[in-house]
Amino acid sequence: MPQELSEIVADVCRDVKDRIGSGRVADYIPALANIDPRKFGISIMTCDGETVSAGDADEPFSIQSVSKVFTLTLALERIGPVLWSRIGREPTGSAFNSIVQLEHEAGIPRNPLINAGAIVVTDVLLEGQGPRQTIDEIVSFLRHRADDVSVAVDAEVARSERETGDRNASLAHFMRGFGNIKGEVDDVLSVYFQQCAIAMSCRQLARAGLFLAHAGSDPLSKEQVVSEARARRINAIMMSCGHYDASGDFAFHVGLPGKSGVGGGILAIAPRRAAIAVWSPGLNEVGNSLVGSLALERLSALTGWSVF
Amino acid sequence: MPQELSEIVADVCRDVKDRIGSGRVADYIPALANIDPRKFGISIMTCDGETVSAGDADEPFSIQSVSKVFTLTLALERIGPVLWSRIGREPTGSAFNSIVQLEHEAGIPRNPLINAGAIVVTDVLLEGQGPRQTIDEIVSFLRHRADDVSVAVDAEVARSERETGDRNASLAHFMRGFGNIKGEVDDVLSVYFQQCAIAMSCRQLARAGLFLAHAGSDPLSKEQVVSEARARRINAIMMSCGHYDASGDFAFHVGLPGKSGVGGGILAIAPRRAAIAVWSPGLNEVGNSLVGSLALERLSALTGWSVF
Amino acid sequence: MPQELSEIVADVCRDVKDRIGSGRVADYIPALANIDPRKFGISIMTCDGETVSAGDADEPFSIQSVSKVFTLTLALERIGPVLWSRIGREPTGSAFNSIVQLEHEAGIPRNPLINAGAIVVTDVLLEGQGPRQTIDEIVSFLRHRADDVSVAVDAEVARSERETGDRNASLAHFMRGFGNIKGEVDDVLSVYFQQCAIAMSCRQLARAGLFLAHAGSDPLSKEQVVSEARARRINAIMMSCGHYDASGDFAFHVGLPGKSGVGGGILAIAPRRAAIAVWSPGLNEVGNSLVGSLALERLSALTGWSVF
Amino acid sequence: MPQELSEIVADVCRDVKDRIGSGRVADYIPALANIDPRKFGISIMTCDGETVSAGDADEPFSIQSVSKVFTLTLALERIGPVLWSRIGREPTGSAFNSIVQLEHEAGIPRNPLINAGAIVVTDVLLEGQGPRQTIDEIVSFLRHRADDVSVAVDAEVARSERETGDRNASLAHFMRGFGNIKGEVDDVLSVYFQQCAIAMSCRQLARAGLFLAHAGSDPLSKEQVVSEARARRINAIMMSCGHYDASGDFAFHVGLPGKSGVGGGILAIAPRRAAIAVWSPGLNEVGNSLVGSLALERLSALTGWSVF
Repeated sequence: MPQELSEIVADVCRDVKDRIGSGRVADYIPALANIDPRKFGISIMTCDGETVSAGDADEPFSIQSVSKVFTLTLALERIGPVLWSRIGREPTGSAFNSIVQLEHEAGIPRNPLINAGAIVVTDVLLEGQGPRQTIDEIVSFLRHRADDVSVAVDAEVARSERETGDRNASLAHFMRGFGNIKGEVDDVLSVYFQQCAIAMSCRQLARAGLFLAHAGSDPLSKEQVVSEARARRINAIMMSCGHYDASGDFAFHVGLPGKSGVGGGILAIAPRRAAIAVWSPGLNEVGNSLVGSLALERLSALTGWSVF
Repeated sequence: MPQELSEIVADVCRDVKDRIGSGRVADYIPALANIDPRKFGISIMTCDGETVSAGDADEPFSIQSVSKVFTLTLALERIGPVLWSRIGREPTGSAFNSIVQLEHEAGIPRNPLINAGAIVVTDVLLEGQGPRQTIDEIVSFLRHRADDVSVAVDAEVARSERETGDRNASLAHFMRGFGNIKGEVDDVLSVYFQQCAIAMSCRQLARAGLFLAHAGSDPLSKEQVVSEARARRINAIMMSCGHYDASGDFAFHVGLPGKSGVGGGILAIAPRRAAIAVWSPGLNEVGNSLVGSLALERLSALTGWSVF
Repeated sequence: MPQELSEIVADVCRDVKDRIGSGRVADYIPALANIDPRKFGISIMTCDGETVSAGDADEPFSIQSVSKVFTLTLALERIGPVLWSRIGREPTGSAFNSIVQLEHEAGIPRNPLINAGAIVVTDVLLEGQGPRQTIDEIVSFLRHRADDVSVAVDAEVARSERETGDRNASLAHFMRGFGNIKGEVDDVLSVYFQQCAIAMSCRQLARAGLFLAHAGSDPLSKEQVVSEARARRINAIMMSCGHYDASGDFAFHVGLPGKSGVGGGILAIAPRRAAIAVWSPGLNEVGNSLVGSLALERLSALTGWSVF
Repeated sequence: MPQELSEIVADVCRDVKDRIGSGRVADYIPALANIDPRKFGISIMTCDGETVSAGDADEPFSIQSVSKVFTLTLALERIGPVLWSRIGREPTGSAFNSIVQLEHEAGIPRNPLINAGAIVVTDVLLEGQGPRQTIDEIVSFLRHRADDVSVAVDAEVARSERETGDRNASLAHFMRGFGNIKGEVDDVLSVYFQQCAIAMSCRQLARAGLFLAHAGSDPLSKEQVVSEARARRINAIMMSCGHYDASGDFAFHVGLPGKSGVGGGILAIAPRRAAIAVWSPGLNEVGNSLVGSLALERLSALTGWSVF
């Protein structure tokens, strides 16, 4: 099948070619705004270890909210299901950075893949250690999962995030007012902005997510990263909540658990098949990669990997 | 595997036995309030035609909102994707009968599986025919799909629904004010209340939903009910939106597309495997069958049918 | 002072002259849409019985929501303060026909001067009598207060209101679902649409509202219409809630209790001084008469009648 | 009349005597929680300079949100009506510290008397000077208006405010994200928490507010503090928005412009008559002084000073 898969990827690339460059690049910080909007990469790593890549699959980009899947994994390993007393598992009918729901639900964010929820996850990871140790732990986990020590925080992006981070500071203070952030807001946001600023390539990202496609174990290193049940549950959350207020649409069109970031990356999981990473900086109106979503829709149709 | 499946079903029944009777029976109309809370039925029909049932699997119950899956199917066959100009495909952060979202989004309901969306679906079915023809069409479709002419509207339930139907009348008038209901509210609600009052057994319901598990075609009658792509998309909507404001939780715990009704029934689809119907009248705090949800969670764990 | 007042009115008319015709005439029903936007009338009746009028002060127009002040008066006389168990007295942060607040506050409208609250008021008046008697009671009260038997319902307007009344039907059914409407929705709305369709001139309206400026008693007929305390409280509600989501702005600019209608009329009360009615059909963006508001602002500045 | 007024005040004190101590003292910081709930003071200063006081009228208490009236006055004097491009003048249907409205209205607070609006006002005052100068300016204004140099910030209260100030930090960051806070959040909050922590007695507060009752001029010092029009407008805002989500109720029962603080103080203005300050630490369920509100309701009834 590897060969066949490479043909499918070629078809996908051909199908989205005319749309490359469309969408609107995130422009709230210079480091993202200056990205060439015509970048496009895709990398698929199957459970039996084959990799098919195309385009700019080896160029690192800012993974942004895709990092939330990995910090969620770490937090669940750290404190287990008690995490769910501080964060819900329901999709939200609102934008990624909405604070309305937090007021209605007393500081409990709806799920760990929106900003508020991911900030609580970061706060969990901070418990018992300092911000530097915490970001080190996150980067180290990603290096390990990607099997690549070059994964690192883009300091320039992290600094810019901080400078424009009033909305996230607002979310953090709001939840702290309800007692749902335990650490100092400055510490929590320091880690949060750095995790968002981690740079990875499609190839690294697909490799890093592979354990989620393979019942929680890394098929290459044979490590059991999380239990099978936990892997399924993380996938379920990605399906329900991974694309902000367009999660239903992504399920409808692609049919795979996935998580997008405003850097234009999307990690998608085809359970028992493969992990897929795509990157294209232009975003659609709800903040997900426009061409990346189209590519995944085509890929899902051509492979029949939709879970439905 | 049929034998093995029957053992699994026996295990499921044993596992939930102690919880049977818990939850709160819907009490807004007498016909539902008077149901014995200790009823419990389950029926699984696999794609190769085997059926395993247990408990009160042959006793008809009020399918209520489970009907929304079938009217959605009919409406999509009738007018195709143009339906999505009148209804969204996103989960809602609100209760099943919330009107808040409708005001914020100008009369466009978030998805076809909440009341407002299902009322628009019914309005679509009414176009070009009267209420009686429309409900006949719906019942006829369900009889055909269940391969059982005994499927019928419970007139007593339908009458009670109408008498207590102010909230649904409010939703319908609200959307009509935005032009998103074309027919007369009385006509639309007449059909809507009757479709909710259809009575079916678990066996009938699992049989009726089988085409959704089998790429859109009925594996027994060989009819292609809907295209494979459409079946997948209906399943995707059930996954994202099938359990009101607990859809994320159902995905997390069960990992199957499903649709619940306040009568205590749930239809779940295991793609490429089986259709499953459970019934237990006691509801949890968000209005889904408490024991039914537990039974499906166990079934999913024991069979490995979770799509994740 | 009568002479002086007539000079002030002349000044007001001169000051707003250039703006006459601006704003947007309500167009949801033909009977309102066809009004000449250049109509402008003003009538002031002082507590000592002097009247100063200008412009189209004797031409009847659709009083619309101004009627809510009078039905509130009737309902308070009928059942007293127990009314406040069914309606609040707080301004709303939403549009005149918003349903969001009703969901958050369990079917209790925020105040009697928004549509939902006025519909509850009408429901109170309906208790123990039929719709025809109820509208007769309302019209009779207004004829008595205006001292003019020509006050009447414009049947054409009432019919049109009904045909486009889905939003109000939605509000009524919504509250009925919470038990806060006791009568049949059709009956309540029949009265409500007729009361909105009452036609009165500025002169009649100022005369009818005079008791509110004079401690609850009609200075001419010497009738004590309501107690002084009640008159003050009705004025307080007009100040807080009389202009939908621009009530604060009206208080800021005009400084008088007032109630506007989408027909372009405004009734304002200068306590211990006078009742003022203005009419100009063009509305501002929140649905209050644009030139009417300006005229009242000028009048308030020139007379020093602001309560602040 | 001074004598008569002292009798009225005696009557008011007698009428509320049995309720003294009821309500719930603000307990979010120790300095407020430890106040004796049985404190009660009232001070009335008339436009002709007579003062009638009773109870603990000379004991300083934390004026908290009452400070918002004075910072609003300063900001209007500083930048004039352009302030209204950054803050609305409408009451809010939400709690004093709600953030929901800010999200719906893009970071523009509804009015200057809720926390978010007062934080913007403070940001305006900070422009061109440091936090220390700014708080000095505010305290100096209050000393001048109260004609008493003993007015000062309670440093202990200010420190506690800061430590528990996450919700206000959230509001400030939120608005800064929309560009509606120009300064650093730490600076803005430093001033804001200090202004809330100013301690004044009823006598000082009534004296300080007197210019609002006297057309903008101080009747004793003869200074024109603000123009008559501005004084009226500040009063209008107090009437519409001075008591959070119970502003309508205060207008209904008291009929005077007023502003409350969680320290239990209320400043009320009887235009052309007097300024009134009451203090009783126990709060009602919406956060306004319970006994203070009752006292003002009685006073208004006995004096006939209601503006309605």
